[in-house]
Amino acid sequence: LANPQLFDGKVLAPGKIAIIGTGLIGGSIAASFRRVFSGTWIRGYSQANDANVALQLGLLDEACITVEACVADADIVFLACPVGAMPAMFEELALHGAKFRWLTDCGSTKRSVIAAARVHLGPVFDRYLPGHPIAGSERHGPAGASAHLFVKRNWLLCPQSPAQERVAEQIAPVLEALGSQVKWVDALSHDELFAEISHFPHWMVFAACLGIAEGPHGAAAMTQSGAGLKDTTRIGASSAALWADIFIDNREPLEASLDRFDLALKQMRTLLETGDRASLTAMIDRASTWRKLVT
Amino acid sequence: LANPQLFDGKVLAPGKIAIIGTGLIGGSIAASFRRVFSGTWIRGYSQANDANVALQLGLLDEACITVEACVADADIVFLACPVGAMPAMFEELALHGAKFRWLTDCGSTKRSVIAAARVHLGPVFDRYLPGHPIAGSERHGPAGASAHLFVKRNWLLCPQSPAQERVAEQIAPVLEALGSQVKWVDALSHDELFAEISHFPHWMVFAACLGIAEGPHGAAAMTQSGAGLKDTTRIGASSAALWADIFIDNREPLEASLDRFDLALKQMRTLLETGDRASLTAMIDRASTWRKLVT
Repeated sequence: LANPQLFDGKVLAPGKIAIIGTGLIGGSIAASFRRVFSGTWIRGYSQANDANVALQLGLLDEACITVEACVADADIVFLACPVGAMPAMFEELALHGAKFRWLTDCGSTKRSVIAAARVHLGPVFDRYLPGHPIAGSERHGPAGASAHLFVKRNWLLCPQSPAQERVAEQIAPVLEALGSQVKWVDALSHDELFAEISHFPHWMVFAACLGIAEGPHGAAAMTQSGAGLKDTTRIGASSAALWADIFIDNREPLEASLDRFDLALKQMRTLLETGDRASLTAMIDRASTWRKLVT
Repeated sequence: LANPQLFDGKVLAPGKIAIIGTGLIGGSIAASFRRVFSGTWIRGYSQANDANVALQLGLLDEACITVEACVADADIVFLACPVGAMPAMFEELALHGAKFRWLTDCGSTKRSVIAAARVHLGPVFDRYLPGHPIAGSERHGPAGASAHLFVKRNWLLCPQSPAQERVAEQIAPVLEALGSQVKWVDALSHDELFAEISHFPHWMVFAACLGIAEGPHGAAAMTQSGAGLKDTTRIGASSAALWADIFIDNREPLEASLDRFDLALKQMRTLLETGDRASLTAMIDRASTWRKLVT
Protein backbone atom coordinates (compact mmCIF):
# COMPACT_ATOMS: atom_id res chain seq x y z
CA LEU A 1 0.00 0.00 0.00
CA ALA A 2 1.18 3.48 -0.79
CA ASN A 3 1.87 5.61 2.27
CA PRO A 4 0.51 9.16 2.25
CA GLN A 5 3.28 11.26 3.77
CA LEU A 6 5.00 14.59 3.56
CA PHE A 7 7.77 14.39 0.97
CA ASP A 8 9.67 17.57 0.09
CA GLY A 9 6.77 19.52 1.57
CA LYS A 10 4.22 17.81 -0.65
CA VAL A 11 1.72 15.19 0.44
CA LEU A 12 1.90 12.07 -1.71
CA ALA A 13 -1.45 11.08 -3.17
CA PRO A 14 -3.01 8.06 -1.47
CA GLY A 15 -3.14 5.31 -4.07
CA LYS A 16 -6.71 4.25 -3.36
CA ILE A 17 -9.40 5.51 -1.07
CA ALA A 18 -12.79 4.03 -0.24
CA ILE A 19 -15.83 6.10 0.63
CA ILE A 20 -18.64 4.30 2.46
CA GLY A 21 -21.70 6.50 2.15
CA THR A 22 -21.46 8.79 -0.87
CA GLY A 23 -23.92 11.52 0.10
CA LEU A 24 -23.11 15.19 0.62
CA ILE A 25 -20.06 14.58 2.83
CA GLY A 26 -18.78 11.43 1.10
CA GLY A 27 -19.34 13.01 -2.30
CA SER A 28 -17.48 16.14 -1.21
CA ILE A 29 -14.56 14.04 0.03
CA ALA A 30 -14.45 12.44 -3.42
CA ALA A 31 -14.69 15.84 -5.15
CA SER A 32 -11.94 17.25 -2.90
CA PHE A 33 -9.60 14.34 -3.71
CA ARG A 34 -10.33 14.86 -7.41
CA ARG A 35 -9.31 18.50 -7.03
CA VAL A 36 -6.15 17.91 -4.98
CA PHE A 37 -4.86 14.37 -5.65
CA SER A 38 -5.21 13.58 -9.32
CA GLY A 39 -3.54 10.19 -8.86
CA THR A 40 -5.90 8.71 -6.28
CA TRP A 41 -8.31 5.96 -7.31
CA ILE A 42 -11.67 6.59 -5.62
CA ARG A 43 -14.16 3.85 -4.87
CA GLY A 44 -17.56 4.41 -3.32
CA TYR A 45 -20.29 2.32 -1.76
CA SER A 46 -23.78 3.36 -0.69
CA GLN A 47 -26.92 1.60 0.44
CA ALA A 48 -29.23 3.60 -1.85
CA ASN A 49 -28.41 4.82 -5.36
CA ASP A 50 -25.97 7.56 -4.21
CA ALA A 51 -22.82 5.75 -5.34
CA ASN A 52 -24.19 5.37 -8.87
CA VAL A 53 -25.12 9.04 -8.97
CA ALA A 54 -21.63 9.95 -7.68
CA LEU A 55 -20.08 7.77 -10.40
CA GLN A 56 -22.28 9.47 -13.01
CA LEU A 57 -21.15 12.89 -11.71
CA GLY A 58 -17.53 11.79 -12.13
CA LEU A 59 -16.80 11.94 -8.41
CA LEU A 60 -15.94 8.23 -8.21
CA ASP A 61 -13.82 5.92 -10.33
CA GLU A 62 -15.89 2.93 -9.23
CA ALA A 63 -19.25 2.42 -7.57
CA CYS A 64 -19.06 -0.89 -5.70
CA ILE A 65 -21.96 -3.13 -4.82
CA THR A 66 -20.28 -4.59 -1.74
CA VAL A 67 -18.35 -3.03 1.13
CA GLU A 68 -15.69 -5.70 0.63
CA ALA A 69 -15.01 -4.66 -2.96
CA CYS A 70 -15.03 -1.00 -2.02
CA VAL A 71 -12.35 -1.21 0.70
CA ALA A 72 -9.97 -3.59 -1.10
CA ASP A 73 -6.41 -2.13 -1.08
CA ALA A 74 -7.62 1.20 0.24
CA ASP A 75 -5.10 3.40 2.04
CA ILE A 76 -7.90 5.25 3.76
CA VAL A 77 -11.52 4.20 4.23
CA PHE A 78 -13.78 7.20 4.87
CA LEU A 79 -16.96 6.18 6.67
CA ALA A 80 -19.48 8.88 5.77
CA CYS A 81 -22.82 7.15 6.29
CA PRO A 82 -25.39 8.44 8.83
CA VAL A 83 -24.28 7.80 12.40
CA GLY A 84 -27.19 5.40 12.97
CA ALA A 85 -25.77 3.07 10.30
CA MET A 86 -22.23 3.11 11.68
CA PRO A 87 -22.39 0.25 14.24
CA ALA A 88 -23.47 -2.26 11.58
CA MET A 89 -20.87 -0.87 9.19
CA PHE A 90 -18.09 -1.25 11.78
CA GLU A 91 -19.18 -4.85 12.20
CA GLU A 92 -18.85 -5.47 8.47
CA LEU A 93 -15.57 -3.55 8.14
CA ALA A 94 -14.04 -5.66 10.92
CA LEU A 95 -14.50 -8.70 8.64
CA HIS A 96 -12.44 -7.05 5.90
CA GLY A 97 -9.84 -5.46 8.16
CA ALA A 98 -6.96 -7.15 6.37
CA LYS A 99 -7.90 -5.46 3.07
CA PHE A 100 -7.47 -1.78 3.98
CA ARG A 101 -4.97 0.28 5.92
CA TRP A 102 -6.68 3.09 7.83
CA LEU A 103 -10.28 3.87 8.69
CA THR A 104 -11.76 7.19 9.71
CA ASP A 105 -15.36 8.32 10.13
CA CYS A 106 -17.16 11.63 9.54
CA GLY A 107 -19.89 11.28 12.15
CA SER A 108 -21.37 14.39 13.76
CA THR A 109 -21.29 12.74 17.18
CA LYS A 110 -18.21 11.10 18.60
CA ARG A 111 -18.80 9.24 21.88
CA SER A 112 -21.44 6.84 20.58
CA VAL A 113 -19.54 6.25 17.33
CA ILE A 114 -16.33 5.53 19.23
CA ALA A 115 -18.21 3.18 21.60
CA ALA A 116 -19.62 1.26 18.62
CA ALA A 117 -16.18 1.10 17.00
CA ARG A 118 -14.69 -0.23 20.23
CA VAL A 119 -17.30 -2.98 20.41
CA HIS A 120 -17.24 -4.03 16.76
CA LEU A 121 -13.87 -3.26 15.17
CA GLY A 122 -11.69 -5.71 17.13
CA PRO A 123 -8.01 -5.28 16.17
CA VAL A 124 -8.97 -2.77 13.44
CA PHE A 125 -9.72 -0.29 16.28
CA ASP A 126 -5.97 0.54 16.40
CA ARG A 127 -6.09 1.64 12.74
CA TYR A 128 -9.31 3.62 13.21
CA LEU A 129 -9.41 7.39 13.74
CA PRO A 130 -12.61 9.08 14.99
CA GLY A 131 -13.11 12.29 13.00
CA HIS A 132 -15.60 15.03 12.20
CA PRO A 133 -15.24 17.48 9.33
CA ILE A 134 -17.11 20.64 10.37
CA ALA A 135 -18.82 21.34 7.10
CA GLY A 136 -22.26 20.74 5.78
CA SER A 137 -25.13 22.14 3.84
CA GLU A 138 -28.89 21.91 3.84
CA ARG A 139 -28.46 20.14 0.49
CA HIS A 140 -27.98 16.41 0.52
CA GLY A 141 -26.89 13.55 -1.68
CA PRO A 142 -23.89 13.54 -4.02
CA ALA A 143 -25.53 16.19 -6.23
CA GLY A 144 -24.94 18.62 -3.35
CA ALA A 145 -21.21 17.76 -3.16
CA SER A 146 -18.55 20.43 -3.38
CA ALA A 147 -14.81 20.12 -3.98
CA HIS A 148 -14.32 23.11 -1.65
CA LEU A 149 -16.64 22.03 1.19
CA PHE A 150 -13.75 21.47 3.61
CA VAL A 151 -11.59 24.44 2.63
CA LYS A 152 -10.75 26.57 5.67
CA ARG A 153 -13.09 24.41 7.79
CA ASN A 154 -12.06 22.52 10.89
CA TRP A 155 -11.62 18.76 10.60
CA LEU A 156 -11.73 17.51 14.18
CA LEU A 157 -9.95 14.32 15.23
CA CYS A 158 -10.51 12.39 18.46
CA PRO A 159 -7.77 9.73 18.74
CA GLN A 160 -8.44 7.38 21.67
CA SER A 161 -5.04 5.69 22.06
CA PRO A 162 -1.36 6.09 21.14
CA ALA A 163 -2.03 3.81 18.13
CA GLN A 164 -4.86 6.07 16.95
CA GLU A 165 -2.66 9.12 17.53
CA ARG A 166 -0.17 7.68 15.07
CA VAL A 167 -2.99 7.21 12.54
CA ALA A 168 -3.96 10.85 13.13
CA GLU A 169 -0.40 11.98 12.39
CA GLN A 170 -0.48 10.08 9.10
CA ILE A 171 -3.93 11.17 7.94
CA ALA A 172 -3.74 14.81 9.06
CA PRO A 173 -1.48 15.97 6.18
CA VAL A 174 -3.92 14.45 3.68
CA LEU A 175 -6.88 16.26 5.26
CA GLU A 176 -4.90 19.49 5.35
CA ALA A 177 -4.05 19.03 1.68
CA LEU A 178 -7.83 19.00 1.04
CA GLY A 179 -7.86 22.49 2.56
CA SER A 180 -9.12 21.74 6.05
CA GLN A 181 -7.69 22.81 9.41
CA VAL A 182 -7.02 19.72 11.53
CA LYS A 183 -7.59 19.94 15.29
CA TRP A 184 -7.49 17.29 18.01
CA VAL A 185 -10.37 17.41 20.48
CA ASP A 186 -11.74 15.43 23.40
CA ALA A 187 -14.84 13.38 22.46
CA LEU A 188 -17.07 14.50 25.36
CA SER A 189 -16.21 18.19 24.88
CA HIS A 190 -16.91 17.69 21.18
CA ASP A 191 -20.32 16.17 21.78
CA GLU A 192 -21.39 18.83 24.27
CA LEU A 193 -20.20 21.73 22.13
CA PHE A 194 -21.82 20.36 18.96
CA ALA A 195 -25.06 19.61 20.80
CA GLU A 196 -25.15 23.33 21.55
CA ILE A 197 -23.93 24.89 18.30
CA SER A 198 -25.20 22.39 15.74
CA HIS A 199 -27.65 19.75 16.99
CA PHE A 200 -29.77 22.10 19.12
CA PRO A 201 -30.19 24.74 16.35
CA HIS A 202 -31.29 22.01 13.92
CA TRP A 203 -33.75 20.65 16.48
CA MET A 204 -35.15 24.11 17.16
CA VAL A 205 -35.52 24.94 13.47
CA PHE A 206 -37.22 21.62 12.68
CA ALA A 207 -39.72 22.32 15.49
CA ALA A 208 -40.27 25.87 14.19
CA CYS A 209 -40.90 24.61 10.64
CA LEU A 210 -43.28 21.98 11.98
CA GLY A 211 -45.22 24.54 14.02
CA ILE A 212 -45.52 26.86 11.02
CA ALA A 213 -46.21 24.09 8.51
CA GLU A 214 -49.06 22.62 10.53
CA GLY A 215 -50.50 25.91 11.80
CA PRO A 216 -53.01 28.15 10.01
CA HIS A 217 -50.33 30.12 8.11
CA GLY A 218 -48.34 27.23 6.61
CA ALA A 219 -49.28 27.99 3.02
CA ALA A 220 -49.01 31.80 3.28
CA ALA A 221 -45.65 31.52 5.04
CA MET A 222 -44.26 29.52 2.11
CA THR A 223 -44.62 32.46 -0.25
CA GLN A 224 -44.47 35.49 2.04
CA SER A 225 -41.47 34.74 4.24
CA GLY A 226 -38.85 37.46 4.36
CA ALA A 227 -35.08 37.06 4.49
CA GLY A 228 -35.22 36.73 8.28
CA LEU A 229 -37.38 33.60 8.38
CA LYS A 230 -35.62 32.14 5.34
CA ASP A 231 -32.17 32.45 6.86
CA THR A 232 -33.39 31.31 10.27
CA THR A 233 -34.98 28.16 8.88
CA ARG A 234 -32.50 27.37 6.08
CA ILE A 235 -31.12 24.30 7.93
CA GLY A 236 -34.71 23.05 8.32
CA ALA A 237 -34.47 21.63 4.80
CA SER A 238 -31.78 19.18 5.97
CA SER A 239 -32.16 15.41 5.83
CA ALA A 240 -34.66 14.07 8.38
CA ALA A 241 -33.11 10.58 8.68
CA LEU A 242 -29.60 11.94 9.14
CA TRP A 243 -30.65 14.34 11.88
CA ALA A 244 -32.95 11.94 13.72
CA ASP A 245 -29.89 9.68 14.01
CA ILE A 246 -27.71 12.47 15.37
CA PHE A 247 -30.34 13.62 17.87
CA ILE A 248 -30.87 10.13 19.28
CA ASP A 249 -27.16 9.47 19.24
CA ASN A 250 -26.25 12.58 21.21
CA ARG A 251 -29.41 12.73 23.27
CA GLU A 252 -28.05 13.73 26.69
CA PRO A 253 -25.97 16.76 25.65
CA LEU A 254 -28.83 17.80 23.31
CA GLU A 255 -31.33 17.62 26.16
CA ALA A 256 -29.08 19.82 28.29
CA SER A 257 -29.06 22.41 25.48
CA LEU A 258 -32.84 22.11 25.04
CA ASP A 259 -33.38 22.61 28.77
CA ARG A 260 -31.41 25.86 28.68
CA PHE A 261 -33.43 27.00 25.67
CA ASP A 262 -36.74 26.11 27.35
CA LEU A 263 -35.72 28.11 30.41
CA ALA A 264 -34.93 31.18 28.28
CA LEU A 265 -38.26 30.79 26.43
CA LYS A 266 -40.14 30.56 29.73
CA GLN A 267 -38.39 33.57 31.28
CA MET A 268 -39.15 35.68 28.21
CA ARG A 269 -42.75 34.45 28.11
CA THR A 270 -43.35 35.51 31.72
CA LEU A 271 -42.16 39.03 30.90
CA LEU A 272 -44.38 39.08 27.79
CA GLU A 273 -47.44 38.05 29.77
CA THR A 274 -46.88 40.70 32.43
CA GLY A 275 -46.02 43.30 29.77
CA ASP A 276 -42.71 44.07 31.51
CA ARG A 277 -41.16 45.98 28.63
CA ALA A 278 -38.00 47.09 30.46
CA SER A 279 -37.04 43.61 31.70
CA LEU A 280 -37.91 42.02 28.36
CA THR A 281 -35.75 44.58 26.54
CA ALA A 282 -32.88 43.93 28.96
CA MET A 283 -33.16 40.17 28.47
CA ILE A 284 -33.27 40.43 24.66
CA ASP A 285 -30.35 42.80 24.82
CA ARG A 286 -28.24 40.10 26.52
CA ALA A 287 -29.13 37.74 23.64
CA SER A 288 -28.42 40.36 21.00
CA THR A 289 -25.11 41.37 22.60
CA TRP A 290 -23.91 37.76 22.43
CA ARG A 291 -24.96 37.39 18.78
CA LYS A 292 -23.09 40.53 17.76
CA LEU A 293 -19.91 38.96 19.14
CA VAL A 294 -20.23 35.77 17.04
CA THR A 295 -17.41 35.79 14.51
CA LEU B 1 -48.63 71.57 -1.36
CA ALA B 2 -47.38 69.65 -4.34
CA ASN B 3 -49.46 66.60 -5.20
CA PRO B 4 -47.59 63.37 -5.94
CA GLN B 5 -49.49 61.84 -8.84
CA LEU B 6 -49.09 59.89 -12.02
CA PHE B 7 -48.43 62.30 -14.88
CA ASP B 8 -47.64 60.89 -18.31
CA GLY B 9 -46.78 57.62 -16.56
CA LYS B 10 -44.24 59.27 -14.25
CA VAL B 11 -44.73 59.94 -10.56
CA LEU B 12 -44.15 63.59 -9.69
CA ALA B 13 -41.65 64.07 -6.88
CA PRO B 14 -43.26 65.04 -3.58
CA GLY B 15 -42.03 68.54 -2.75
CA LYS B 16 -41.21 67.81 0.86
CA ILE B 17 -41.32 64.72 3.03
CA ALA B 18 -40.84 64.35 6.77
CA ILE B 19 -39.38 61.24 8.40
CA ILE B 20 -40.08 60.80 12.09
CA GLY B 21 -37.60 58.22 13.35
CA THR B 22 -34.52 58.09 11.12
CA GLY B 23 -33.18 54.64 11.96
CA LEU B 24 -32.76 51.75 9.54
CA ILE B 25 -36.24 52.07 7.98
CA GLY B 26 -36.51 55.87 8.13
CA GLY B 27 -32.97 56.22 6.83
CA SER B 28 -33.70 53.80 4.00
CA ILE B 29 -36.83 55.76 3.05
CA ALA B 30 -34.64 58.88 2.85
CA ALA B 31 -31.99 57.03 0.80
CA SER B 32 -34.67 55.64 -1.53
CA PHE B 33 -36.13 59.12 -2.13
CA ARG B 34 -32.61 60.43 -2.82
CA ARG B 35 -32.20 57.69 -5.43
CA VAL B 36 -35.60 58.12 -7.12
CA PHE B 37 -36.86 61.67 -6.50
CA SER B 38 -34.00 64.13 -6.81
CA GLY B 39 -36.33 67.09 -6.27
CA THR B 40 -37.75 66.09 -2.89
CA TRP B 41 -36.66 68.02 0.21
CA ILE B 42 -36.18 65.53 3.04
CA ARG B 43 -36.49 66.47 6.69
CA GLY B 44 -35.89 64.09 9.59
CA TYR B 45 -36.52 64.01 13.31
CA SER B 46 -35.34 61.49 15.89
CA GLN B 47 -35.29 61.26 19.64
CA ALA B 48 -31.65 60.16 19.85
CA ASN B 49 -28.82 61.27 17.58
CA ASP B 50 -30.01 59.32 14.52
CA ALA B 51 -31.24 62.39 12.59
CA ASN B 52 -27.86 64.10 12.93
CA VAL B 53 -26.11 60.94 11.75
CA ALA B 54 -28.54 60.70 8.82
CA LEU B 55 -27.84 64.35 7.94
CA GLN B 56 -24.10 63.66 8.13
CA LEU B 57 -24.55 60.67 5.80
CA GLY B 58 -26.33 62.94 3.31
CA LEU B 59 -29.65 61.11 3.66
CA LEU B 60 -31.48 64.19 4.94
CA ASP B 61 -31.56 67.81 3.86
CA GLU B 62 -32.43 68.91 7.38
CA ALA B 63 -32.32 67.32 10.83
CA CYS B 64 -35.02 68.99 12.90
CA ILE B 65 -35.07 69.36 16.65
CA THR B 66 -38.87 69.43 16.89
CA VAL B 67 -41.58 67.34 15.30
CA GLU B 68 -43.39 70.56 14.40
CA ALA B 69 -40.46 71.87 12.34
CA CYS B 70 -40.00 68.46 10.69
CA VAL B 71 -43.55 68.09 9.39
CA ALA B 72 -44.05 71.70 8.20
CA ASP B 73 -45.31 71.72 4.58
CA ALA B 74 -44.66 68.01 4.18
CA ASP B 75 -46.61 66.18 1.48
CA ILE B 76 -46.02 62.89 3.26
CA VAL B 77 -45.00 62.28 6.87
CA PHE B 78 -43.41 58.83 7.31
CA LEU B 79 -43.66 57.66 10.91
CA ALA B 80 -40.80 55.19 11.31
CA CYS B 81 -40.15 55.18 15.05
CA PRO B 82 -40.53 51.97 17.16
CA VAL B 83 -44.18 50.96 17.56
CA GLY B 84 -44.01 51.61 21.31
CA ALA B 85 -43.33 55.30 20.64
CA MET B 86 -46.16 55.71 18.12
CA PRO B 87 -49.10 56.55 20.45
CA ALA B 88 -47.27 59.57 21.90
CA MET B 89 -46.15 60.59 18.44
CA PHE B 90 -49.72 60.44 17.08
CA GLU B 91 -50.73 62.70 19.94
CA GLU B 92 -48.09 65.24 18.97
CA LEU B 93 -48.77 64.97 15.23
CA ALA B 94 -52.47 65.69 15.84
CA LEU B 95 -51.42 69.11 17.17
CA HIS B 96 -49.65 69.92 13.90
CA GLY B 97 -52.22 68.35 11.58
CA ALA B 98 -52.72 71.57 9.64
CA LYS B 99 -49.06 71.68 8.64
CA PHE B 100 -48.75 68.45 6.62
CA ARG B 101 -50.82 66.62 4.06
CA TRP B 102 -50.62 62.86 4.51
CA LEU B 103 -49.30 60.62 7.25
CA THR B 104 -48.29 56.98 7.00
CA ASP B 105 -46.50 54.70 9.44
CA CYS B 106 -44.05 51.82 9.00
CA GLY B 107 -44.94 49.82 12.12
CA SER B 108 -44.48 46.04 12.14
CA THR B 109 -47.83 45.59 13.86
CA LYS B 110 -51.02 47.13 12.62
CA ARG B 111 -54.00 46.69 14.95
CA SER B 112 -52.47 48.39 17.99
CA VAL B 113 -50.97 51.17 15.87
CA ILE B 114 -54.32 51.78 14.16
CA ALA B 115 -56.09 51.78 17.53
CA ALA B 116 -53.65 54.39 18.87
CA ALA B 117 -54.07 56.50 15.73
CA ARG B 118 -57.85 56.35 16.08
CA VAL B 119 -57.64 57.56 19.68
CA HIS B 120 -55.06 60.29 19.18
CA LEU B 121 -55.18 61.64 15.63
CA GLY B 122 -58.61 63.23 15.67
CA PRO B 123 -59.51 64.62 12.20
CA VAL B 124 -56.00 63.77 10.92
CA PHE B 125 -57.09 60.09 11.02
CA ASP B 126 -58.73 60.62 7.59
CA ARG B 127 -55.35 61.63 6.12
CA TYR B 128 -53.51 58.74 7.82
CA LEU B 129 -52.63 55.49 6.08
CA PRO B 130 -51.50 52.47 8.14
CA GLY B 131 -48.59 50.83 6.33
CA HIS B 132 -45.81 48.27 6.71
CA PRO B 133 -42.85 47.97 4.36
CA ILE B 134 -41.73 44.33 4.50
CA ALA B 135 -38.02 44.93 4.62
CA GLY B 136 -35.48 44.97 7.36
CA SER B 137 -32.05 43.94 8.43
CA GLU B 138 -30.29 42.89 11.60
CA ARG B 139 -28.39 46.19 11.25
CA HIS B 140 -29.90 49.25 12.82
CA GLY B 141 -29.59 53.01 12.83
CA PRO B 142 -29.19 55.23 9.75
CA ALA B 143 -25.73 53.77 9.10
CA GLY B 144 -27.53 50.53 8.14
CA ALA B 145 -29.78 52.33 5.64
CA SER B 146 -30.00 51.23 2.03
CA ALA B 147 -31.44 53.02 -0.99
CA HIS B 148 -32.55 49.63 -2.31
CA LEU B 149 -34.08 48.21 0.90
CA PHE B 150 -37.62 48.33 -0.49
CA VAL B 151 -36.88 47.24 -4.04
CA LYS B 152 -39.05 44.23 -5.01
CA ARG B 153 -40.33 44.05 -1.42
CA ASN B 154 -43.97 44.25 -0.41
CA TRP B 155 -45.21 47.48 1.11
CA LEU B 156 -48.46 46.55 2.82
CA LEU B 157 -51.24 49.09 3.32
CA CYS B 158 -54.23 48.73 5.67
CA PRO B 159 -56.67 51.57 4.88
CA GLN B 160 -59.49 51.65 7.45
CA SER B 161 -62.02 53.89 5.70
CA PRO B 162 -62.93 55.27 2.27
CA ALA B 163 -60.94 58.41 3.16
CA GLN B 164 -57.86 56.33 3.95
CA GLU B 165 -58.38 54.35 0.76
CA ARG B 166 -58.11 57.59 -1.18
CA VAL B 167 -54.85 58.35 0.66
CA ALA B 168 -53.61 54.88 -0.28
CA GLU B 169 -54.39 55.54 -3.94
CA GLN B 170 -52.32 58.74 -3.82
CA ILE B 171 -49.35 57.37 -1.89
CA ALA B 172 -49.12 53.97 -3.61
CA PRO B 173 -47.52 55.32 -6.85
CA VAL B 174 -44.82 57.02 -4.77
CA LEU B 175 -44.04 53.80 -2.87
CA GLU B 176 -44.01 51.88 -6.15
CA ALA B 177 -41.61 54.43 -7.59
CA LEU B 178 -39.26 53.55 -4.71
CA GLY B 179 -39.31 50.00 -6.06
CA SER B 180 -41.76 48.35 -3.70
CA GLN B 181 -44.81 46.24 -4.49
CA VAL B 182 -47.87 47.76 -2.87
CA LYS B 183 -50.56 45.43 -1.50
CA TRP B 184 -53.68 46.11 0.54
CA VAL B 185 -54.26 43.79 3.49
CA ASP B 186 -56.61 43.37 6.43
CA ALA B 187 -55.02 44.44 9.75
CA LEU B 188 -55.90 41.33 11.76
CA SER B 189 -54.69 38.97 9.02
CA HIS B 190 -51.53 41.07 8.82
CA ASP B 191 -50.84 40.82 12.55
CA GLU B 192 -51.44 37.07 12.71
CA LEU B 193 -49.33 36.31 9.65
CA PHE B 194 -46.43 38.51 10.81
CA ALA B 195 -46.59 37.07 14.32
CA GLU B 196 -45.92 33.72 12.66
CA ILE B 197 -43.37 34.60 9.97
CA SER B 198 -41.51 37.48 11.61
CA HIS B 199 -42.21 38.09 15.30
CA PHE B 200 -42.12 34.42 16.35
CA PRO B 201 -38.79 33.66 14.57
CA HIS B 202 -37.21 36.71 16.20
CA TRP B 203 -38.53 35.61 19.61
CA MET B 204 -37.24 32.08 19.12
CA VAL B 205 -33.81 33.24 17.98
CA PHE B 206 -33.45 35.69 20.88
CA ALA B 207 -34.26 32.84 23.30
CA ALA B 208 -31.75 30.56 21.53
CA CYS B 209 -29.01 33.19 21.72
CA LEU B 210 -29.81 33.77 25.39
CA GLY B 211 -29.66 30.04 26.18
CA ILE B 212 -26.31 29.69 24.39
CA ALA B 213 -24.87 32.97 25.73
CA GLU B 214 -25.60 32.10 29.33
CA GLY B 215 -24.84 28.38 29.13
CA PRO B 216 -21.42 26.71 29.47
CA HIS B 217 -20.54 27.06 25.76
CA GLY B 218 -21.27 30.78 25.27
CA ALA B 219 -17.66 31.76 24.65
CA ALA B 220 -16.74 28.72 22.50
CA ALA B 221 -19.87 29.14 20.42
CA MET B 222 -18.85 32.70 19.53
CA THR B 223 -15.80 31.52 17.66
CA GLN B 224 -16.71 27.98 16.57
CA SER B 225 -20.19 28.41 15.13
CA GLY B 226 -20.65 27.11 11.62
CA ALA B 227 -22.72 28.61 8.84
CA GLY B 228 -25.82 26.83 10.17
CA LEU B 229 -25.89 28.51 13.57
CA LYS B 230 -24.80 31.83 12.10
CA ASP B 231 -27.60 31.92 9.55
CA THR B 232 -30.14 30.63 12.05
CA THR B 233 -29.30 33.32 14.62
CA ARG B 234 -28.52 36.24 12.27
CA ILE B 235 -31.69 38.11 13.26
CA GLY B 236 -30.67 37.70 16.92
CA ALA B 237 -28.42 40.75 16.51
CA SER B 238 -31.49 42.94 15.93
CA SER B 239 -32.44 45.84 18.17
CA ALA B 240 -33.75 44.73 21.59
CA ALA B 241 -35.90 47.81 22.24
CA LEU B 242 -37.53 47.66 18.81
CA TRP B 243 -38.43 44.00 19.17
CA ALA B 244 -39.60 44.15 22.79
CA ASP B 245 -42.06 46.79 21.58
CA ILE B 246 -43.29 44.62 18.72
CA PHE B 247 -43.65 41.52 20.91
CA ILE B 248 -45.70 43.36 23.55
CA ASP B 249 -47.68 45.12 20.88
CA ASN B 250 -48.67 41.96 19.06
CA ARG B 251 -48.77 39.70 22.11
CA GLU B 252 -51.85 37.60 21.40
CA PRO B 253 -51.02 36.45 17.85
CA LEU B 254 -47.39 35.91 18.98
CA GLU B 255 -48.53 33.73 21.87
CA ALA B 256 -50.60 31.63 19.49
CA SER B 257 -47.49 31.07 17.35
CA LEU B 258 -45.39 30.29 20.44
CA ASP B 259 -47.97 27.77 21.62
CA ARG B 260 -47.79 25.91 18.31
CA PHE B 261 -43.98 25.93 18.52
CA ASP B 262 -44.05 24.65 22.12
CA LEU B 263 -46.33 21.82 21.07
CA ALA B 264 -43.97 20.78 18.25
CA LEU B 265 -41.00 20.94 20.65
CA LYS B 266 -42.84 18.77 23.17
CA GLN B 267 -43.92 16.20 20.59
CA MET B 268 -40.37 15.89 19.27
CA ARG B 269 -38.96 15.70 22.81
CA THR B 270 -41.22 12.78 23.70
CA LEU B 271 -39.96 10.86 20.69
CA LEU B 272 -36.36 11.70 21.59
CA GLU B 273 -36.80 10.44 25.14
CA THR B 274 -38.33 7.17 24.01
CA GLY B 275 -35.75 6.82 21.24
CA ASP B 276 -38.51 6.41 18.65
CA ARG B 277 -36.32 6.93 15.61
CA ALA B 278 -38.97 6.15 12.98
CA SER B 279 -41.58 8.55 14.38
CA LEU B 280 -38.98 11.25 14.99
CA THR B 281 -37.73 10.92 11.42
CA ALA B 282 -41.29 11.12 10.09
CA MET B 283 -42.00 14.24 12.17
CA ILE B 284 -38.79 15.99 11.08
CA ASP B 285 -39.56 15.02 7.52
CA ARG B 286 -42.86 16.94 7.70
CA ALA B 287 -40.88 20.01 8.87
CA SER B 288 -38.23 19.58 6.21
CA THR B 289 -40.79 19.05 3.44
CA TRP B 290 -42.44 22.37 4.31
CA ARG B 291 -39.11 24.23 4.37
CA LYS B 292 -38.15 22.90 0.95
CA LEU B 293 -41.34 24.48 -0.44
CA VAL B 294 -40.56 27.96 0.92
CA THR B 295 -39.88 30.23 -2.04
